[in-house]
Amino acid sequence: VSAEVRVGAIEGLPEIASGDDLAQLIARCAEDQLATGAIVCVAHKLVSKAEGRVVDLATVEPSELVAGMAHEMGRDPRLIQVVLSESAEIIRAERGVFICRTHHGFVCANAGVDQSNAATPDSLVLLPLDPDASARQLKADLERITGVAPLGVLISDSFGRAWRVGQVDVAIGLAGLTPTLPHEGRVDRAGRALVATQPALADEVAAAAGLARTKAGGQGAVIITGLGEHVTDADGPGAAAVLRSRDEDLFGAR
Amino acid sequence: VSAEVRVGAIEGLPEIASGDDLAQLIARCAEDQLATGAIVCVAHKLVSKAEGRVVDLATVEPSELVAGMAHEMGRDPRLIQVVLSESAEIIRAERGVFICRTHHGFVCANAGVDQSNAATPDSLVLLPLDPDASARQLKADLERITGVAPLGVLISDSFGRAWRVGQVDVAIGLAGLTPTLPHEGRVDRAGRALVATQPALADEVAAAAGLARTKAGGQGAVIITGLGEHVTDADGPGAAAVLRSRDEDLFGAR
Repeated sequence: VSAEVRVGAIEGLPEIASGDDLAQLIARCAEDQLATGAIVCVAHKLVSKAEGRVVDLATVEPSELVAGMAHEMGRDPRLIQVVLSESAEIIRAERGVFICRTHHGFVCANAGVDQSNAATPDSLVLLPLDPDASARQLKADLERITGVAPLGVLISDSFGRAWRVGQVDVAIGLAGLTPTLPHEGRVDRAGRALVATQPALADEVAAAAGLARTKAGGQGAVIITGLGEHVTDADGPGAAAVLRSRDEDLFGAR
Repeated sequence: VSAEVRVGAIEGLPEIASGDDLAQLIARCAEDQLATGAIVCVAHKLVSKAEGRVVDLATVEPSELVAGMAHEMGRDPRLIQVVLSESAEIIRAERGVFICRTHHGFVCANAGVDQSNAATPDSLVLLPLDPDASARQLKADLERITGVAPLGVLISDSFGRAWRVGQVDVAIGLAGLTPTLPHEGRVDRAGRALVATQPALADEVAAAAGLARTKAGGQGAVIITGLGEHVTDADGPGAAAVLRSRDEDLFGAR
């Protein structure tokens, strides 16, 4: 079928540690899967770990204010301290979960701070400092090492959604892939589109990658082929272009 | 690769009209693609059209109240009348767009009423009356006609999201596919998971199908293979199980 898209997990990646060369490891494990126009989708945990964005809980000293709050919530105050440090704004705090706007502008539970995928239960994995920059670097490195170009690179995290149960993977870092496709849709009699349709390509790619990640045990990296027409030499605007400002957003909590 | 997922558009489907036998048409066009454990993902417009969920604007008589509202918004009052009829609740009304909770419980722009994909600019396509029932019927019909079982059936629509630009396809009807995967994740020292992780499998499948739909021109139906371990003989709880109640929702506008 001409329109087929293929989604396959990269097998054999080791547990990533601070300072590891992620591009080298991916290039080695995905040699047979990488072709012109392929998109490399990496769970942010791999990038965060390679970049040393891991916090040892033993080193965290919560403020008194945070300690009081954490006590009321029945949570580890050191954890709450880290979540607040990673947040630009707390949008909601309920039932032990913070819905945060991160310093990057992403809205997600607990500012993306993740305990479950840390190497030890006493460490936390944070989001990369600048996921778009990480994606650009990974794209450049992968293209240089493999000689295959252009490649798209997408860094994902699993985000909860408004009104719907469960998490889907979305793009938090992006290079060489168009984040959204152009507007489509007819205008109504008043000359205005009923709904401005703009497929969120990068987030659909991230979700598709999530399917193969889940199969492969939830961690890791995935290659998607068949979308080469959206993969560019240029890095493009990154996942930051998908962020909607508070004023433009009709769906979110305020 | 063992974990490969394949996403391919079904080619050759005709424009669907009220009363068409969608299962027969899909079975004929997708004969070579249908295998045990495949998931048939259908844009809701096909289902709605086959079920006659299309409204001719000329037959709509807006109330005075709606006419006044539409005038203020600069919109066609007949359109607004239909959107309100399809809504159980208006969550927000801004800049000519209603964010609605439909009678099914889905939260989306303009209650899913779609002008751009109608056969004529003077008609509107609504959401199916009971998308889970439509999915169950399509699954039963496809399995009977093709003799291939089990098949998953997913009916999708493109929904806007909180905080992020663009739309992604989500599941609004589901049969024979697990809507979400079981909880994962370690508990913290207080014995509680930091974030309850529960991959929204059906919505990731819908988004992946969106990638092939976009390639094929935005309309139509898509087959996904490689996820057979989640495809069941039983219909399962349907997409209704993905709806989060207002009280349980931390992300949405209130």
